[in-house]
Amino acid sequence: MDIVVQKYGGSSVATIDRIKNVARRVIKEYKKGKNVVVVVSAMGNSTDELIKLMSGITKRPNPREADMLLTTGEQVSIALLSMAIMEEGYPSISLTGSQVKIRTNNIHNSAKITGIDNSRIVSELKNRKIVVVAGFQGVNSKDDFTTLGRGGSDTTTVALSVALKASRCEIYSDVEGIYTADPRLIPDASKLDFISYEEMLELANLGAKVLHPRAVELAKIYNIKLYIASSFNYKSGTIVKGVDELEMKLNVSGVTCDNNEVKITVQKVPDKPGIEGKLFSKLAEKHINIDMIIQNLQYNSLNDITFTINKENFVKGKKSINSIAKELGAKSVESDKNVAKISIVGAGMISSPGIAAKMFSSLGAAGINIQMITTSDIKISCLIKEAEVDKAVKILHRAFDLSNMSQDEQVK
Amino acid sequence: MDIVVQKYGGSSVATIDRIKNVARRVIKEYKKGKNVVVVVSAMGNSTDELIKLMSGITKRPNPREADMLLTTGEQVSIALLSMAIMEEGYPSISLTGSQVKIRTNNIHNSAKITGIDNSRIVSELKNRKIVVVAGFQGVNSKDDFTTLGRGGSDTTTVALSVALKASRCEIYSDVEGIYTADPRLIPDASKLDFISYEEMLELANLGAKVLHPRAVELAKIYNIKLYIASSFNYKSGTIVKGVDELEMKLNVSGVTCDNNEVKITVQKVPDKPGIEGKLFSKLAEKHINIDMIIQNLQYNSLNDITFTINKENFVKGKKSINSIAKELGAKSVESDKNVAKISIVGAGMISSPGIAAKMFSSLGAAGINIQMITTSDIKISCLIKEAEVDKAVKILHRAFDLSNMSQDEQVK
Repeated sequence: MDIVVQKYGGSSVATIDRIKNVARRVIKEYKKGKNVVVVVSAMGNSTDELIKLMSGITKRPNPREADMLLTTGEQVSIALLSMAIMEEGYPSISLTGSQVKIRTNNIHNSAKITGIDNSRIVSELKNRKIVVVAGFQGVNSKDDFTTLGRGGSDTTTVALSVALKASRCEIYSDVEGIYTADPRLIPDASKLDFISYEEMLELANLGAKVLHPRAVELAKIYNIKLYIASSFNYKSGTIVKGVDELEMKLNVSGVTCDNNEVKITVQKVPDKPGIEGKLFSKLAEKHINIDMIIQNLQYNSLNDITFTINKENFVKGKKSINSIAKELGAKSVESDKNVAKISIVGAGMISSPGIAAKMFSSLGAAGINIQMITTSDIKISCLIKEAEVDKAVKILHRAFDLSNMSQDEQVK
Repeated sequence: MDIVVQKYGGSSVATIDRIKNVARRVIKEYKKGKNVVVVVSAMGNSTDELIKLMSGITKRPNPREADMLLTTGEQVSIALLSMAIMEEGYPSISLTGSQVKIRTNNIHNSAKITGIDNSRIVSELKNRKIVVVAGFQGVNSKDDFTTLGRGGSDTTTVALSVALKASRCEIYSDVEGIYTADPRLIPDASKLDFISYEEMLELANLGAKVLHPRAVELAKIYNIKLYIASSFNYKSGTIVKGVDELEMKLNVSGVTCDNNEVKITVQKVPDKPGIEGKLFSKLAEKHINIDMIIQNLQYNSLNDITFTINKENFVKGKKSINSIAKELGAKSVESDKNVAKISIVGAGMISSPGIAAKMFSSLGAAGINIQMITTSDIKISCLIKEAEVDKAVKILHRAFDLSNMSQDEQVK
């Protein structure tokens, strides 16, 4: 059975006209003889409207009831898309997460998929129906509705592709693919034809909101090729796939930034062995995820430990951080929200030692001060002043000549 | 297990404040030690909004997909009510029709309940949770969501009361009970303390939109006492219950009217045996429900057959009626939308032959012409000009002295 799974995000189904557009796109595929499964998100800002209703009732919604509420968003869009397909004269049926039996664990609001029963979908496909599935949602062992958290519809799409052994997995949104930088900031940013899972993961984690990291991880594990493109035109997009070491020709494939960081400095912590372990394990207990870390040992055996966390964690964890720091004997805790992280990502970076130097010197030449640095196999990130981040993206994009990338240079 | 089932209609949960009000009312009952099951409808006009969305896509929605769409309305309200109850500090859980397993047949948009599995509700009640159930919806044998049609939440409520062997079944809305006439029309209409199922059925069918006839029928079959009252205050309402023949003291318990009728006259049909049977069975095949029927045999063996149908059926069935009439050799079909049906209802009417005469002569004395008459054991209906119907209600309410009803005169 040749199955294609397509996903259309919230902005692609935000209005009745856009839903009709998606219906026509789906039908186009169906008419080629494919078996088509379509995953959709809730319409545009409908989830925000539900959250607004909820906030009128409680500031701390019960997680199960929040899922009960929020899962209605996709249920509306699947029904409307299915009707739009039928209105064009093609057979269709919509299914919620619970009807497909997208089984999840019991963690409401950020459930993990534990298994998918593909029998209902397969039987509907055998009847030559276009099957429209609600993204973002599943059902736990008690038949309670769960949601998968941010980017959940992407995860649904990849998981369904795995369960259905789909020949293609296509993710459509309002962006045309993966670029060397944010095209709103760098108008001549190049669209990549191909990108590796690893690079995509770094880009996704770094705030390029095209594709959710969990979906990329899942695609990597099962070696599912993803096609990322726009639902508003038929321009070619970007393929996310595995890549051989030998193929890693390119040094830098993109520049990305993240304005959601807060820099915390725990000042003058007495330098005892294991003190960093204590600090960060206590933060972990409070579910505060750390991003970058720097430690400066000073002349008087007092440490300054600096790290970054995202802004939500800061709001949530401010008190805990202060009390943990106090417990460890630190003098004070400073925080700075006016920072941003700029990163260059590239699968071949590890084998090109000059890359980091070029990054630092380009920023330095432009008078941009680097506050912190972290590196991984395929990325280098610098923390800089938030006000300078747009300028920094432009400088690095030019420094690595990303506007003029020919396809030969790209990872194939 | 002492279980109370309460139902709150759409206007009772139309806003966040009203949902909070319902939460407090429900908790009040819970604090008395009762096990409380609450059935709610969709918020205010949210169903209309969904229908508007749908109408942007298709004029003939697929019934299954329409149910997929519309069932989200109650799912939103159950989640919000459950959160509102918890916000007040009491345990609650919401369940959709499919989660309760309110089993229905496969007739989407107007499904009939075939069975209710009470195990999930009972187990949640045993945990002392206030269980909030979505009205109006169920699930068929394929696990597809169904809706019960107009007034479906009332039916859900009575069916749940049966399945749970509830000690009380209470239906709250924006009206305070059952009146001798529409209080908006007759300000001194009396609220009835009690009314029989049979009278309530006639009133419900006749357009007193307080309680759906199917719910009353179900209550009658299982002898479930219904309490009808307002959700906006604690004034005493009306009890709907079975009644012994001996108790039927009252002649007329209410006046009601229905402006939703269209009078159709099929003119000059050749009078052959069985021709009426042919006409009405053909209409039945087209799902056109007939209300009143009159036949006049004329001197030349040509029949005029007159009947009434409701306005929706008229829009839907106009063409069919014309072609059926043509087939039967009728000369023409006339229709008149400017008619209304006025009815008096009373359990004791059958034993009081003077009632009909009083009704006709009261209308006649006021110059109101009666176009058609139908009677049953407990009602007499007259078709009159629509423009005269308000006047007619006032005249009959006065003629039968319904403003001054003492409780002694009422059916107990």
